[in-house]
Amino acid sequence: MAALLKYDIFVARYVVKFGGTSVGNIDRIQRAAGIVVELANAGHEIVVVVSAMAGMTNQLVGYANTLSTEYTPEHDVVTTSGEQITAGLMALALQKCEFSAQSFLAWQIAIETDANHGDAKILNISADHLKSCLAHGIIPVVAGFQGLTQSNRITTLGRGGSDITAVALAAAVNADSCYIYTDVEGVYTADPRIVPNAQKIDVISYPAMLVLASHGAKVLHARCVELGMQHEVDLHVRSSFVTATGTRITSEESTKKINGIAHSLNEVYISLTGTAEQFDHVINTLAAANIAIDMKTQPFPETLHFTINKTDIEHAKSIFTELKSTLSFDTLAIDPNIVKISIIGVGVMHDLTIEPRVLNVLRAHQINVYLTSRSDIKLSLVIAHDQMTKAIGILHDLLIVNNVNEPLN
Amino acid sequence: MAALLKYDIFVARYVVKFGGTSVGNIDRIQRAAGIVVELANAGHEIVVVVSAMAGMTNQLVGYANTLSTEYTPEHDVVTTSGEQITAGLMALALQKCEFSAQSFLAWQIAIETDANHGDAKILNISADHLKSCLAHGIIPVVAGFQGLTQSNRITTLGRGGSDITAVALAAAVNADSCYIYTDVEGVYTADPRIVPNAQKIDVISYPAMLVLASHGAKVLHARCVELGMQHEVDLHVRSSFVTATGTRITSEESTKKINGIAHSLNEVYISLTGTAEQFDHVINTLAAANIAIDMKTQPFPETLHFTINKTDIEHAKSIFTELKSTLSFDTLAIDPNIVKISIIGVGVMHDLTIEPRVLNVLRAHQINVYLTSRSDIKLSLVIAHDQMTKAIGILHDLLIVNNVNEPLN
Repeated sequence: MAALLKYDIFVARYVVKFGGTSVGNIDRIQRAAGIVVELANAGHEIVVVVSAMAGMTNQLVGYANTLSTEYTPEHDVVTTSGEQITAGLMALALQKCEFSAQSFLAWQIAIETDANHGDAKILNISADHLKSCLAHGIIPVVAGFQGLTQSNRITTLGRGGSDITAVALAAAVNADSCYIYTDVEGVYTADPRIVPNAQKIDVISYPAMLVLASHGAKVLHARCVELGMQHEVDLHVRSSFVTATGTRITSEESTKKINGIAHSLNEVYISLTGTAEQFDHVINTLAAANIAIDMKTQPFPETLHFTINKTDIEHAKSIFTELKSTLSFDTLAIDPNIVKISIIGVGVMHDLTIEPRVLNVLRAHQINVYLTSRSDIKLSLVIAHDQMTKAIGILHDLLIVNNVNEPLN
Repeated sequence: MAALLKYDIFVARYVVKFGGTSVGNIDRIQRAAGIVVELANAGHEIVVVVSAMAGMTNQLVGYANTLSTEYTPEHDVVTTSGEQITAGLMALALQKCEFSAQSFLAWQIAIETDANHGDAKILNISADHLKSCLAHGIIPVVAGFQGLTQSNRITTLGRGGSDITAVALAAAVNADSCYIYTDVEGVYTADPRIVPNAQKIDVISYPAMLVLASHGAKVLHARCVELGMQHEVDLHVRSSFVTATGTRITSEESTKKINGIAHSLNEVYISLTGTAEQFDHVINTLAAANIAIDMKTQPFPETLHFTINKTDIEHAKSIFTELKSTLSFDTLAIDPNIVKISIIGVGVMHDLTIEPRVLNVLRAHQINVYLTSRSDIKLSLVIAHDQMTKAIGILHDLLIVNNVNEPLN
């Protein structure tokens, strides 16, 4: 209840979004409605955004993929019905609590997007209907994830789509804050399933959160963070199952040297020995095939190490097979059993002792670092997958738990 | 295959509708798509209309009813997602067969209705988008059952809603025929679960079909038949599981004396003894309470028999309790264990031997007839429910199987 005291002081406008687990059945929808009711009873104006009930989108995608593995506009028609169901049910749950509520689908608002079906970008939101609802004491309940093209076709916003809807609506209706209710209590300093003493982050800057999300933190999708940063949305991630304040993502600068440690299993490590000419040819051929090279190092003139995305691996292998017939590398090794660990925080830039201390502590524990790369507020390392848990634990102790992570000033 | 030969001769425009069982899973959706493909391959222009997958609407209604037993506009938002899913999947199934196909929801067409949520009436259909699709060789796949109010809210068309969508679209696009594909082979002379030798009806007139549907035949909803009659749609009911021609419903006059025997378990039989004054008071009070009296007879001045709908029974009972305190009837009996059997065909009007023969054969079998009523092409009888199977069998033998049912001319 302490957390609510601050709401009693002023009347604000909030966008409140519930993820699939938070609306996973009728009881949970009613629980989520209870959170909205508490805010509305305090006098606040609320716009609700909902995901599909947990599991439903996968079921619908499964149906559609049985008929067409290629993604088509009709996939969007099928999958958006999931959020439509939840929007109607959430409106009913709020009505049951004696509040006026009305569901809105993307076309009813409208949320206009480009025609990139399955991964559309929002171009424009007409906030008039929603603002009119708020002015009349009606709680609008918006189906997340969906949009509308100029030619009236249904689109979806891709992974993290409902979060994107929430943040975009928060910007469109000039909300004071956007609350993303999910099944975890916030953003953590590391994945709690891997690091049991990972800590919930209370406040984090948009740039740090963006890098965390881009490098494996699953709570928010990078595109949602990017959109929030662009529109300076005051964004909160919290659990719909626990009463706690969660993580606030803000435009304010971070006061921590290191915010967190993310990891990603999406990369494949490739090492070549050969000549500079051969390497140039490989890099150019991969680039021409639209295969992005992530981390890259050439420790010796005759050695090239780099990573590519796992989704590109079969394509890359066929290119290597072709190239080998003409280039004949000395050696070519492809290793998918790796992990990219990323240390994120302004300390990476400002505290030059961090990188050597990281490398020292890993070496002291016989953890071999294949590759490193540093950019602004992020230091990434590639190591063997079977050393992941040990390495992240050691780095978390060194950089988060122990005193290296004292405030910057 | 013989049935298809006629399609080879001319190019026509058809509306083809599939019910919930016909699109109950992905395999069945593909089977239904095969029927469309066969027609399209013959050069015909096809508009497809789909129901929700069998069971889905009930599941969605169940969700919504958990939150609100009162029907609200949000119920329509929740339930219409079922047809949206099938429309997308059917479009994908047709695309898999190398046909251009595009799903349409009510708002994308638009199918405008009044704002009577849960049981809306179609006011207008803009056929431009559909006609444009047909002109470009695209098969439009329309989500049945749904409409759109003038204020952009989603509505549903009530029971038989997808059939209504199909017939209304057939009228709007000037289709040559409307095919309703379902899980039975057509309209039968009686319910085949009760009368094993019931016969599939090849052709039936709209007025006869309307009376059949209004009096218990479940294949088509009366509102759909009414709409078809009004717009003179050439309507066919057939099975998506069996290759057979099914039943054709047409504006042409029927050539059979008796088309079929319907039965309904929706009535309650009420008998009173008292005075004419008391009876007037009862009838007027029920009418004022909006309780419709269906069949009514007063064989003696001191006896009144009538039926009302089962849904009105609790309301009627409370009215009787009130009335009894002031009117004190001699006796009042309420019997829900009855069935209304209706014999339908122009023979009821033209062959005056039918009614006495019906009553004689029932009397000969010790079946007591509580009430009869005759109007135009229908003769209805109320009997005890436990004699239903026997009575319908006897009447079916007399009127359909035996030679009374020779052609009219």
